[in-house]
Amino acid sequence: MSTRGADPGVLLTDLYQLTMLQAYFDRSMHETAVFELFVRRLPQNRNFLVAAGLEQALDYLCALRFTERDIEDARRTGLFGDEFLAWLARLKFTGDVEALPEGTVFFADEPVLRVTAPLAEAQLVESRLVNIVHFQTLIASKAARCVLAAPGKTLVDFGMRRAHGADAALHAARASYLAGFTGTSTVSAQPEFGIPIFGTMAHSFIQAHASELEAFAHFVESQRGPIVLLIDTYDTVKAAERVVEIARRLRGKTIDSVRLDSGDLAVLSREVRRIFDAEGLRDIRIFASGGLDEHSVRALVAGGAPIDGFGIGTALDVSDDCPALDCVYKLQAYAGKARRKRSTGKATWPGRKQVFRLYAHDGRFERDVLTVEGDPQRGEPLLEPVMKTGARLAAPTLADARAHAAAQLAKLPDPLRSLERAGAYTVQVADALTALTARVDEEFK
Amino acid sequence: MSTRGADPGVLLTDLYQLTMLQAYFDRSMHETAVFELFVRRLPQNRNFLVAAGLEQALDYLCALRFTERDIEDARRTGLFGDEFLAWLARLKFTGDVEALPEGTVFFADEPVLRVTAPLAEAQLVESRLVNIVHFQTLIASKAARCVLAAPGKTLVDFGMRRAHGADAALHAARASYLAGFTGTSTVSAQPEFGIPIFGTMAHSFIQAHASELEAFAHFVESQRGPIVLLIDTYDTVKAAERVVEIARRLRGKTIDSVRLDSGDLAVLSREVRRIFDAEGLRDIRIFASGGLDEHSVRALVAGGAPIDGFGIGTALDVSDDCPALDCVYKLQAYAGKARRKRSTGKATWPGRKQVFRLYAHDGRFERDVLTVEGDPQRGEPLLEPVMKTGARLAAPTLADARAHAAAQLAKLPDPLRSLERAGAYTVQVADALTALTARVDEEFK
Repeated sequence: MSTRGADPGVLLTDLYQLTMLQAYFDRSMHETAVFELFVRRLPQNRNFLVAAGLEQALDYLCALRFTERDIEDARRTGLFGDEFLAWLARLKFTGDVEALPEGTVFFADEPVLRVTAPLAEAQLVESRLVNIVHFQTLIASKAARCVLAAPGKTLVDFGMRRAHGADAALHAARASYLAGFTGTSTVSAQPEFGIPIFGTMAHSFIQAHASELEAFAHFVESQRGPIVLLIDTYDTVKAAERVVEIARRLRGKTIDSVRLDSGDLAVLSREVRRIFDAEGLRDIRIFASGGLDEHSVRALVAGGAPIDGFGIGTALDVSDDCPALDCVYKLQAYAGKARRKRSTGKATWPGRKQVFRLYAHDGRFERDVLTVEGDPQRGEPLLEPVMKTGARLAAPTLADARAHAAAQLAKLPDPLRSLERAGAYTVQVADALTALTARVDEEFK
Repeated sequence: MSTRGADPGVLLTDLYQLTMLQAYFDRSMHETAVFELFVRRLPQNRNFLVAAGLEQALDYLCALRFTERDIEDARRTGLFGDEFLAWLARLKFTGDVEALPEGTVFFADEPVLRVTAPLAEAQLVESRLVNIVHFQTLIASKAARCVLAAPGKTLVDFGMRRAHGADAALHAARASYLAGFTGTSTVSAQPEFGIPIFGTMAHSFIQAHASELEAFAHFVESQRGPIVLLIDTYDTVKAAERVVEIARRLRGKTIDSVRLDSGDLAVLSREVRRIFDAEGLRDIRIFASGGLDEHSVRALVAGGAPIDGFGIGTALDVSDDCPALDCVYKLQAYAGKARRKRSTGKATWPGRKQVFRLYAHDGRFERDVLTVEGDPQRGEPLLEPVMKTGARLAAPTLADARAHAAAQLAKLPDPLRSLERAGAYTVQVADALTALTARVDEEFK
């Protein structure tokens, strides 16, 4: 259970959840509801998405309680009756959840998570469940593109400072690691999630010393972990020569890498590599950062730049080319009857659903079939039970989820591995689901 | 002091802050450092920015401590020595801070906040200070565009679910309110910040009932606050007629508004207005939502759509057209000497600075002058002391900051009020600053 990703409380929700609950309570509408969380459309610049955030979503459901203070805050709005508030104070989440395992590749309209619970419980959790799953899925999907762009390279999340707040910073580290990053610069991600952490030095360190050479020497002397020297503060090539000077006099310690953070990284990395190699310093690695994203990393890798690792910051942590997904949580059944929303441009498929994945002979994904639960279909069913009557079932570790994500990326058909828009992957809607939809539309007019 | 916006702990930082601190400790580099936080370049689609997040930044500095658990977590990385960790355990923030008051309009290169403190303290806080101030400034700047696009309209933050995590959701509500929004749907923003909260109903509420009419009647009966009915679940025009039916039989209660969430809002709002007006229901207001941003809101307002208020969600809470600013925190002086970074494309102006704002005859902003502190210039100095030797000075309330933001927006020159890119506002670099820069470059080569 997360501790530093501190609990923002059950009132971190939309007001309408509580006003609807008051209405459900007033009329004892406590029959079972089924909600599914999914993404309505893939963004233009994503060929697939990677499910993430389930672990924190289940933490949230397990811990869901109105504290005395929450009840008092709700009372003070003047919007709720006393009996209702007394009932809220006893509310727990007692439902079932099925979900895609974290790290699973998925597509539009496919349920990522399903909640089956008494109506009020299932409704209340909408806003925060979307808030949790949307963000980590967004970042894991962006990170997977970086991983595909730089096979075999060290990739480190550098985005903490420009992530949207504390929670985003910590969970961007988790989601990117899950998707295949090597680690993060965010310190708390290590105690919280066991994620490897990486550090270098800032320009201010160089600037606080009388000279760059003195700064390097001082840093090398004080460090107990891998030594990474930042060499672009004044003049990158001169700084590389200073690194050689330092490396020559070193006894018992080695310089792990240098970091380039500005300028033409393709040109500078070659010059620096040449300087080091000429001095026999072949083991000093070159690490690059500074406004990088999957496109610039791919260009550097494709151009053969001798860069061993990349720090990816802002572009990753805010998913800069696509900072939100059309991620929703919709009522699919109530009191045993399938339901759906028909609003213009926002219609959804009704009922409890399952996704089956079919594989080609080479083991790659071939197509998916979206159908109603129980419809016998060939292929691998993707949704699995993860919570039963409010209790979590055995959960994969973050390492398991990371391995699963890697296996999923390995099974992507080649066109989907491209950073450019590929033809859409086929998600076939089964006849059983089309038939159910027609029946529901007949019933609710 | 914020309580629900829970403290993520001092280890929510970049690892290099701690490894640099170890080096500073080893060599007793504890002289005074000056860092300034600023935005290097305005994004293409922003004519100005609105400072926000100072309150939470100062909360962070006041509360800054390494707990026993933080020290233990740091020790376990194996990167730090015992004496250093013992010193960290006693560390507090003892510095001075000057800043732009929240709600102040500012431009590229102008300091938003300055920290003057012993080097280790001033360095350590970099990552989290940027994380806090960057996000709220990002959202306040986006929200200000919405406010300019819809003068006199009710504007409500609806973005909690797609904000990047819990912290972003809560602070997007604060930053948008500060910039002129009427309120938010995020419940916890009320107890936390006193922000007005607004609720409607979800499509699932309609769907959970046997008919839309029954759902409306039930909701009206149960609500104690303003009643807002969502009318686009099945057929918006038919639903408006059902609202009329309900309104006719109401005794002692009134329907405050209806919400349109899909379809052609310009057309539907007119049809719905006509239906209500024909029945004498002129007081029922029309509220619109569904994928709105400042551009679609401006188009609806300019086209004369009879819409009284707008819920703006995802586009606001993730600042979708610009999800990050080039916001940095740079060393400007150490041990009494001005310093600067000269990296290609990332050079900064050295030294302690002040911004002076000059006004035209009509009271609008005319131009700014960026100079070294103490340089006598005409105009209004914008940076003010907000913290002295670790203690906060009297702070404006959120209501004060909101009033200040409104006054600032009223003083924007017309070209900057456009949603389109205007010619850049003049930020003139004073001779005193140019001269200092030349001296610094001579000294640090």
